[in-house]
Amino acid sequence: MKNVFIIGVGLIGGSFALDIKKQKPEYTIFGIDKSEDHLNEAFNLGIIDGKASFKDLEKADLVIVAIPVDATIEVLSKVLDVISEEAIVFDVGSTKEDICLKVKHHPKRRNFLAAHPIAGTEYSGPKAAIHGLYKDKTNIICEVEETAFKLQERALGLFADLGMRIRYMNPKAHDKHIAYVSHLSHISSFMLGKTVIEKEKNERDIFDMAGSGFESTVRLAKSSPAMWTPIFKQNKTNVIETLDGYISNLKQFKQFIEDENFEAVYNEMEATNHIKDILKGIS
Amino acid sequence: MKNVFIIGVGLIGGSFALDIKKQKPEYTIFGIDKSEDHLNEAFNLGIIDGKASFKDLEKADLVIVAIPVDATIEVLSKVLDVISEEAIVFDVGSTKEDICLKVKHHPKRRNFLAAHPIAGTEYSGPKAAIHGLYKDKTNIICEVEETAFKLQERALGLFADLGMRIRYMNPKAHDKHIAYVSHLSHISSFMLGKTVIEKEKNERDIFDMAGSGFESTVRLAKSSPAMWTPIFKQNKTNVIETLDGYISNLKQFKQFIEDENFEAVYNEMEATNHIKDILKGIS
Repeated sequence: MKNVFIIGVGLIGGSFALDIKKQKPEYTIFGIDKSEDHLNEAFNLGIIDGKASFKDLEKADLVIVAIPVDATIEVLSKVLDVISEEAIVFDVGSTKEDICLKVKHHPKRRNFLAAHPIAGTEYSGPKAAIHGLYKDKTNIICEVEETAFKLQERALGLFADLGMRIRYMNPKAHDKHIAYVSHLSHISSFMLGKTVIEKEKNERDIFDMAGSGFESTVRLAKSSPAMWTPIFKQNKTNVIETLDGYISNLKQFKQFIEDENFEAVYNEMEATNHIKDILKGIS
Repeated sequence: MKNVFIIGVGLIGGSFALDIKKQKPEYTIFGIDKSEDHLNEAFNLGIIDGKASFKDLEKADLVIVAIPVDATIEVLSKVLDVISEEAIVFDVGSTKEDICLKVKHHPKRRNFLAAHPIAGTEYSGPKAAIHGLYKDKTNIICEVEETAFKLQERALGLFADLGMRIRYMNPKAHDKHIAYVSHLSHISSFMLGKTVIEKEKNERDIFDMAGSGFESTVRLAKSSPAMWTPIFKQNKTNVIETLDGYISNLKQFKQFIEDENFEAVYNEMEATNHIKDILKGIS
């Protein structure tokens, strides 16, 4: 393996580039991005060795597609059309069902591995790329049996080098679970930020009064709308289900307060404290 | 000033004890706590110099009331009854209206300063006490004009020594603002935790799939129900108002997804990204 192409040189793609470069200095890393500015920025930051375009993909050994999930759906078949029989392509999208469906019958389906590294920050763009982003993180692989065994091995070898844990899942289960543990967190955070901003016209009041608790709950409201809109679109049904559950729990909690049933309020919180033990497994 | 009494030797009271002791080694710090275990723990951890009871408060120069807000309402008048004319008492509660109302007509009202240091972690108990918790944090003082000037000075001197910024506010405004920037965050976090736990019966899935995003949004769901239940009770009206706003924003966001109005979904998130600039002022 020599030529690595990263499509989308932002936080996720850029961080792959940095770690691959560190592990394998002999590889050449090319960037492809619809934003010429991002491409220049990634080059100037030393994240990529060169700028490339789609036609160059024919010489790729590895292609990482790290762009918003709607763009992935658009681009993935074109990538598979161009690459050689020996190349492996993986995506990193936060939805898997639509993406797998899109390339289901592509003649080069076996050159594709559907992946979702559970890693990231609330920042975006090449400047947000960091070393070691993937260390000790889970990478969910979907429909592994659809990928050629030799090519699987190559991708899995890279994930192991980067320190990732692998979990296998079918795309439908992935999209359902991830709606709960990731997509809902983002919406709850965005709407919390919105509710507070609407009310607190005087911003000085927000940051004088807000402690680290507020900061951590609204952190995800800094996330990129360009990345998240297509995720909610592709995972619409599951996301709506999580929102129904969340809104109904909030309403019930409100009702307990209205009814002055503070024993129930206490019990709701105590039962959820159990999240402590669950979180010990994360990070 | 020599004798400092801390009522409630948990995270908040214990952290005051640690910092005061560091700044003023000549002070003696006594702990009062309804839990004998906590009191022993605080003593063994070197957080307090001695264990005391209410009758000892007559020799206090400073009393810090750092217990849940319902207990504060119960205890505060009794503390004022016992202390000398020269002592200053402050509380640290996350609600201010009911507490100020409770002692409004107490003959020693001028010995009390209503305070709310915006500081804490999601942990509780003496073991959770840490050095430097109050550095660069905001301390909201309510009805400052009701406290004797000389005694105000003493408390404010201590807050300055601990590195705190002071903001003055009336109790009603405090309770309204804090409902948005703190109480709502806690409920959103508890209910997020609840929604995910309900759905994800297999906990292994939660921590394998959850990234740092989920972790930061549910962090507050580790908080103590014993502390938070009375806060929601005392700040009932404001908390319900914030929940109404929050639930209605969530419903609207869900509606946009259902209607496939993804331009609106994008715009909602983009408008809230502005929280980035606001958060720069925090932490």
